[in-house]
Amino acid sequence: MMRLRDLLPALDWARDYDRTSFAGDATAAVIVTIMLIPQSLAYAMLAGLPPQIGLYASILPLVAYGLFGTSRTLAVGPVAVVSLMTASAIGPIAEAGSGAYVAAALALALMSGLILVAMAALRLGVIANFLSHPVIAGFISASGILIAISQAKHLLGIPAKGDTLPDMLRSLAGTIGDANLPTLVIGVAAIAFLFWVRKSLKPLLARLGLGPRLADLLAKAGPVAAVIVSASCVALFGLDAQGVKVVGALPTGLPPLTLPQVDLDLWSQLLPAAILISLVGFVESVSVAQTLAAKRRQRIGLNRELVGLGAANIASALTGGYPVTGGFARSVVNFDAGAQTPFAGMLTALGILLTTLFFTPLFATLPQAVLGATIIVAVLSLVDLRGFLRTWRYSKADGAAMTATAVVVLAVGVEPGIVTGVALSLLLFLWRTSRPHMAIVGQVPGTEHFRNILRHKVTESPQVLSVRVDESLYFANARYLEDRLYDMVATRPGIRHVVLMCPAVNFIDASALESLEAIAHRLNAAGVEFHLSEVKGPVMDRLQRSDFFEHFKGQVFLSQHQALAALDPDTTRKADLAA
Amino acid sequence: MMRLRDLLPALDWARDYDRTSFAGDATAAVIVTIMLIPQSLAYAMLAGLPPQIGLYASILPLVAYGLFGTSRTLAVGPVAVVSLMTASAIGPIAEAGSGAYVAAALALALMSGLILVAMAALRLGVIANFLSHPVIAGFISASGILIAISQAKHLLGIPAKGDTLPDMLRSLAGTIGDANLPTLVIGVAAIAFLFWVRKSLKPLLARLGLGPRLADLLAKAGPVAAVIVSASCVALFGLDAQGVKVVGALPTGLPPLTLPQVDLDLWSQLLPAAILISLVGFVESVSVAQTLAAKRRQRIGLNRELVGLGAANIASALTGGYPVTGGFARSVVNFDAGAQTPFAGMLTALGILLTTLFFTPLFATLPQAVLGATIIVAVLSLVDLRGFLRTWRYSKADGAAMTATAVVVLAVGVEPGIVTGVALSLLLFLWRTSRPHMAIVGQVPGTEHFRNILRHKVTESPQVLSVRVDESLYFANARYLEDRLYDMVATRPGIRHVVLMCPAVNFIDASALESLEAIAHRLNAAGVEFHLSEVKGPVMDRLQRSDFFEHFKGQVFLSQHQALAALDPDTTRKADLAA
Repeated sequence: MMRLRDLLPALDWARDYDRTSFAGDATAAVIVTIMLIPQSLAYAMLAGLPPQIGLYASILPLVAYGLFGTSRTLAVGPVAVVSLMTASAIGPIAEAGSGAYVAAALALALMSGLILVAMAALRLGVIANFLSHPVIAGFISASGILIAISQAKHLLGIPAKGDTLPDMLRSLAGTIGDANLPTLVIGVAAIAFLFWVRKSLKPLLARLGLGPRLADLLAKAGPVAAVIVSASCVALFGLDAQGVKVVGALPTGLPPLTLPQVDLDLWSQLLPAAILISLVGFVESVSVAQTLAAKRRQRIGLNRELVGLGAANIASALTGGYPVTGGFARSVVNFDAGAQTPFAGMLTALGILLTTLFFTPLFATLPQAVLGATIIVAVLSLVDLRGFLRTWRYSKADGAAMTATAVVVLAVGVEPGIVTGVALSLLLFLWRTSRPHMAIVGQVPGTEHFRNILRHKVTESPQVLSVRVDESLYFANARYLEDRLYDMVATRPGIRHVVLMCPAVNFIDASALESLEAIAHRLNAAGVEFHLSEVKGPVMDRLQRSDFFEHFKGQVFLSQHQALAALDPDTTRKADLAA
Repeated sequence: MMRLRDLLPALDWARDYDRTSFAGDATAAVIVTIMLIPQSLAYAMLAGLPPQIGLYASILPLVAYGLFGTSRTLAVGPVAVVSLMTASAIGPIAEAGSGAYVAAALALALMSGLILVAMAALRLGVIANFLSHPVIAGFISASGILIAISQAKHLLGIPAKGDTLPDMLRSLAGTIGDANLPTLVIGVAAIAFLFWVRKSLKPLLARLGLGPRLADLLAKAGPVAAVIVSASCVALFGLDAQGVKVVGALPTGLPPLTLPQVDLDLWSQLLPAAILISLVGFVESVSVAQTLAAKRRQRIGLNRELVGLGAANIASALTGGYPVTGGFARSVVNFDAGAQTPFAGMLTALGILLTTLFFTPLFATLPQAVLGATIIVAVLSLVDLRGFLRTWRYSKADGAAMTATAVVVLAVGVEPGIVTGVALSLLLFLWRTSRPHMAIVGQVPGTEHFRNILRHKVTESPQVLSVRVDESLYFANARYLEDRLYDMVATRPGIRHVVLMCPAVNFIDASALESLEAIAHRLNAAGVEFHLSEVKGPVMDRLQRSDFFEHFKGQVFLSQHQALAALDPDTTRKADLAA
């Protein structure tokens, strides 16, 4: 039965909400707000959008997720990889920063939201489990590199372009002569400062006598310090007149109410990207949500997560935003800062709302180079080169899928990259199961057991070939089964019966059913009878529902021993009595 | 070691070639040539190409396949489904019948040939096994319907268009007012005649005293009779002046030598279609080649088939043709007519060559409606509605994949259809293996066996949880394994050890390895030790190559009994002694 609680998980935690929960949520909200302000501006810039769009995407979407999502600590909003995918989806369709570009971003958020909700309705949450970890890791690492390099232009103050690594490098090389020195100084200083904050500020604060938790949290506020100091410097010394590009005047006030236009032509162009953004965003979000939930022994509902993220994206589309999802770094900070419930996210939304109402004038002199530096430092933690080595060492197949995904992301683009990776990991899996283990078995003397003739001392019947197959039978291995059985029979002229032992066959798909029919037909034509044994109950039920037994002339034995006792009683009797 | 025979399978049969072989090959070649003349003209028309292109694609490609292919009886040349795919690939790029259109068809044949040869070099022949039979069947049936309806315009003599069923029907409805009565009469008469030939001519000839084989073969020549009679009627009564569209003057002489232009822009537009045409053509061809080879206990080499079909397509590109593959109906006729070696195909090529040199003027007055009728009668045998019912009854999952493929082919197009079908059959397979069977097991008293506690009377240890998993561990089921194990432990507070029995685990991919690490980490954090037992040799080797055991604190036991004896000696001793 559908209960209101299932629809609105917020009722779960709202019932028991108390002062302790609020203390944790409020602390976390302050920290995450401080972290989110520069990130939301920066990620909007990465997506090719005006900076305030990042702030708009950090208000209502957080409230919507808080009402419908099941993770208690996930921090939803603009994230790096989805921003990159947004830029690569809209780039070919509209001029960056134009009205059409902003409208396409709204449409993308709405489509993504609708796709996620539709997936929830179809109960497709398990799809998150169908992407192999190495493919996701390769995709994220390569995206991190691509994002970091895409920001080099902001550090240099040059108008470089490109969606792929070769294009970016070529464009950078072509425009580097126009680099602006003050911009470069600010950018490099910001990167150095941010790395110092991350590596050394925490130990320093600890030595100054601060508790480790407070030291950790203060270190998270580093980017905001960089924002304040750099914006003040530009304002004081008039550096924007010397060619330092700044964020400029942002609109102040509530996010606009927006209704994305339903333009079928635009929608069909954006559809593949919207599907990939939904999938990648969902997988990234669910991974971090599950990791955090596990630490506190809470559980995540995959289908309700789809609803939560879908609602967040629809909310983003209605309030001037762009596609959002649960972010890795901010969620961890939210969790560590003590967030207890999704109310922390709602308080964060309040913080960002106050920022758009009152503080946007402060960002007018903020250098774009500092936002670029923020992005670079944030995404370099996504790049995990050791993960590549580790995966290669464990499995060449997984390593190849991971590397191919990364190479295609860098050389061709993010969307072809993820498609390649998924296709490769599926192909590799098919390849692995396409040659199931098959063993010719014989009776262990004195028992009713049958074991591999190559590994055990067993009795073989001269006229009955007993073959065990150790995998479910389906399209990728059906023809292999045929080939192997024909080979086995071809090299044993005395054989009059073949019994296929199926104790490990969990299902037989329609392709394999055809193969079984073909095997029976061909063996019969060669004067050999074909039988089955130890077929599992559900598999047998399904065979009986088909017309398989209308043509099948062999028998189905409950056990291999019964098969041999019926088909070759002499040999079996001798083997039963031997010891 | 690479031998010349591996490269040129023709050396295999050429060595033993004799007069008997020649007699069979020559008979088959005559029959197939007679069948191929109208089909090659008709399929070129279906592909949107001038009719003579079909003849050109039926000469050198057959010789090339004869030299490099491994099937002794496969009849290569233009086929219906690949012709349809060619039309749908080039249609959006160039005007049907234009020079650009013909050039694109050449490029498509060359690309398809290169892709097939590249697949052979990468030894990807097994890919033919990775397409599920219901998806192929759904694709072929729907293509047959689409092709048949696309020919209605030729029967009516109207300029209807469209690549999808709704478009075609709408266009037919809009132009049916312009139908030409003489054309319709000729078309309907041709269809009626061809169906009569197929159903009733053979029994009639048999009753007239002809041998069944001769009667069968004469019936195959029916379409040529229709061609001759209809072309003569048009010529005699001047029906072309009354609006009956005819094939018109065809060039006489050798096929032109053509070098497809290397136009990167065109090639990148055609690439997805070229890949799909290569795959579908290969699968169709291999299916019929294997069926026929099995009847004579011959074998097909998948990778060498790729070379053979690749060579045929490259030959087609060099002599004014378009993509070709092994056709179902003609191969069966070739086999039944007694073809012994690929020399039959070379003789067929000679027959078609003589036709282009001397007989093309005969087709000038051939009505297009008769070619349309030939196509309709040929492709309706591809439509297998009973197959849909049969598949649905056996497995809803396979039935759904088959139906979805067919619906998308009809409603959206052939390429989206095959992509949908393949994606669906993979997803369904992942779904099937994503919830592996897991059982809590206990010791059968008095033995060292462990069995499912739900099905057998067994002894359970109060502090050791023994869980058996009956599937290889990989990305699609890794998270399910985690969830199930956590649930099992959560409901059993007394548990201090968990032993995962892996006798059915054939591989553990990198995703599942991460899950095992996560399980160990989380159980340890909850004060529970995690162990493995009965890990297969190759799986263990791979685990030892990774850094898994650097973090893993549990033990790996050779058998579940050893695990229990070590972790709970008291319970195990009692169970050992009980009977």
